[in-house]
Amino acid sequence: MESLRDKCAIVGIGFTRFSSNSGVSVMNLALEACKKAIEDAGLTNRDVDAVLTYNMSDSVPATEVATGLGLSELNYHLDQWAGGNASSGIVITAAMAVATGMCKYAVCFRAMNGRSGFRMGGGGRGITEARGEDQFLAPYGWTSWAHSFAMFFRRHMHKYGTKAEQLGHIAVACRKHACLNERAMQRKPLTLEEYMQEPMRVDPFRKYDICLETDGACAVVVTTAERARDLRHRPVYIMGAGYGGGPLPNSYGLCTSAWLNWPDHTESYAKYIAPQLWGMAGVSPEDIDVAEVYDCFTGEVLIQLEDLGFCKKGEGGAFVEGGRIELGGELPVNTHGGHLSEAYIHGLNHVVEAVSQLRGDAGPRQVKDAELALTTGFGYTVGSAMILRR
Amino acid sequence: MESLRDKCAIVGIGFTRFSSNSGVSVMNLALEACKKAIEDAGLTNRDVDAVLTYNMSDSVPATEVATGLGLSELNYHLDQWAGGNASSGIVITAAMAVATGMCKYAVCFRAMNGRSGFRMGGGGRGITEARGEDQFLAPYGWTSWAHSFAMFFRRHMHKYGTKAEQLGHIAVACRKHACLNERAMQRKPLTLEEYMQEPMRVDPFRKYDICLETDGACAVVVTTAERARDLRHRPVYIMGAGYGGGPLPNSYGLCTSAWLNWPDHTESYAKYIAPQLWGMAGVSPEDIDVAEVYDCFTGEVLIQLEDLGFCKKGEGGAFVEGGRIELGGELPVNTHGGHLSEAYIHGLNHVVEAVSQLRGDAGPRQVKDAELALTTGFGYTVGSAMILRR
Repeated sequence: MESLRDKCAIVGIGFTRFSSNSGVSVMNLALEACKKAIEDAGLTNRDVDAVLTYNMSDSVPATEVATGLGLSELNYHLDQWAGGNASSGIVITAAMAVATGMCKYAVCFRAMNGRSGFRMGGGGRGITEARGEDQFLAPYGWTSWAHSFAMFFRRHMHKYGTKAEQLGHIAVACRKHACLNERAMQRKPLTLEEYMQEPMRVDPFRKYDICLETDGACAVVVTTAERARDLRHRPVYIMGAGYGGGPLPNSYGLCTSAWLNWPDHTESYAKYIAPQLWGMAGVSPEDIDVAEVYDCFTGEVLIQLEDLGFCKKGEGGAFVEGGRIELGGELPVNTHGGHLSEAYIHGLNHVVEAVSQLRGDAGPRQVKDAELALTTGFGYTVGSAMILRR
Repeated sequence: MESLRDKCAIVGIGFTRFSSNSGVSVMNLALEACKKAIEDAGLTNRDVDAVLTYNMSDSVPATEVATGLGLSELNYHLDQWAGGNASSGIVITAAMAVATGMCKYAVCFRAMNGRSGFRMGGGGRGITEARGEDQFLAPYGWTSWAHSFAMFFRRHMHKYGTKAEQLGHIAVACRKHACLNERAMQRKPLTLEEYMQEPMRVDPFRKYDICLETDGACAVVVTTAERARDLRHRPVYIMGAGYGGGPLPNSYGLCTSAWLNWPDHTESYAKYIAPQLWGMAGVSPEDIDVAEVYDCFTGEVLIQLEDLGFCKKGEGGAFVEGGRIELGGELPVNTHGGHLSEAYIHGLNHVVEAVSQLRGDAGPRQVKDAELALTTGFGYTVGSAMILRR
């Protein structure tokens, strides 16, 4: 096999209610999402023989979920210790496993009580539990990813003249889409004026630049293209895949020396995986009909669009203006509302939305005749992305 | 691709000194082992584009090691949160990644200051940090894996009449092999009488039934069979692979409800992955020349030999008698001394030894004309295994 291109497909999607207080355990959320994804595929739990997930010590292990689902056997599993960079990555690993015959049907999930339970980005544990280089940053208040990413995006504004209003266009587009998505947590319309009226939280990020915190779970089922043809829905094929980053790919901690040594803070992992991603798929950015781009903060959407070649480096600010990234525009981005307005399920909700779009099941937010979708998982120096096709 | 069979090879091995106090950081150990494995393959750090590891919050992330090695790009990485069950599993995942074209040369490592640093099996954290079902066991002194595995093996003795002396044969064989291995931590000859004279530590386990604690690291480099032909050493091909377990595969915590519900405590994961393992390789247990079997405790070697079909269930006690598992016997087991007498590098030292044997580089402990080797990683309900061939 020279590449994963079109060897595998996503055949089932599942998700729980997205809320600020689920009232149930993370295990409960994980099992509900997995069960729904398996049923959506037209399979039963006992057909599934692999379970994959990623988390940062805030969730339940794949093997415990396998037990909860009552699988008859387990032929592969993954508990990737990682953040959002792994969101397309675990789907890619599932594809690797089914493509090489290690397992037949793999369910990938992400479950978290991210609002009511462990709040990963909140910085609450930052000072008392800072490790490595972080311990020298925490006393100065640098305790969350928002602090790191805000300073990095300031560099983009300095170097390229990117404006606050341009970040605002991303927040407004996501909210506009969320208003058409009945499962979105935030559905109150948002104007650019309202965006700008908010005070700075972490300069240059205002309230609506920052992702939500969510209790919930998502899951997808992956199998070979051959098996996919016999299942309930039209398969969504994995056409291109990239999972990595550039030199000094350290992505743990809030801002390790590796981040500080990163060659250019206006660039991300996406620049480095782009050649493999597009090369494997054999398509170009202009072929993409809908892009579900990891949005921990607005600025990271803009940086990834540049790094993946949707526009030139430094031109992302202009690219997101004028409705281009809204439904009806040239490249609808985060048609579910993204992390900013749908829910924060660590990027796996972006994969679920891409599959809905390519199936033509996205209802009032459907991108007409969507054939190719992009999904990404962001981690600055390390990340993942897929090109999916119907 | 129908299976991974012969698609990939292990092309480099590396290891640090094994000691009870390394005097250096875990990062230092990881980098040394990886660098040696890469050099052993005839490659440079900049050729490598994937890093994989597994640990239980006691080691360094793959991405930080990628940064330390100065890789020019990272095209796959794995930080599997797992115990020894993943030791063959990460090598299998590396093979999946290179076989599907996600990356070219993958280095897999395990690094730990397991004696001087975090002591995972010691139980010292058991009472204060017990979670889930464990909190109900810890007050009664059930705080380590030794306690769990000892009781499970008692069941084997009860059901099949397995004797203490038979466990002793495993400890004695490992020590005999370690005496021929200059990097082994324990090289004082051990007799069956000396074994039996030790008092019970955790009935039925005496001192020499229990693995060492080690500061050290091991690493292996994996690439495609095609690329392997151009490298320094004769490739060691991955002929068969299995990574999973049976029903209720929960393997976290010391003894969760899943373990208690496990159908038969005289059986392990190995029973469930055996059909895929042998089926993929197209060989049988009698074809294996040398077996490097995960030995957290002696009893687990015996159980895996049964479950993988080297003898019938319940006959493992007789199987390990009479020198059969010693060098010169029918099936030499743990020719490096294993976890019991070489070092506890969480099963990756077993993979390193299998490669040495198949290259014919094992010196005084070489199994003559070894062509096929077995490696395993044990986790009771979940584990991994490979068939390697020269």
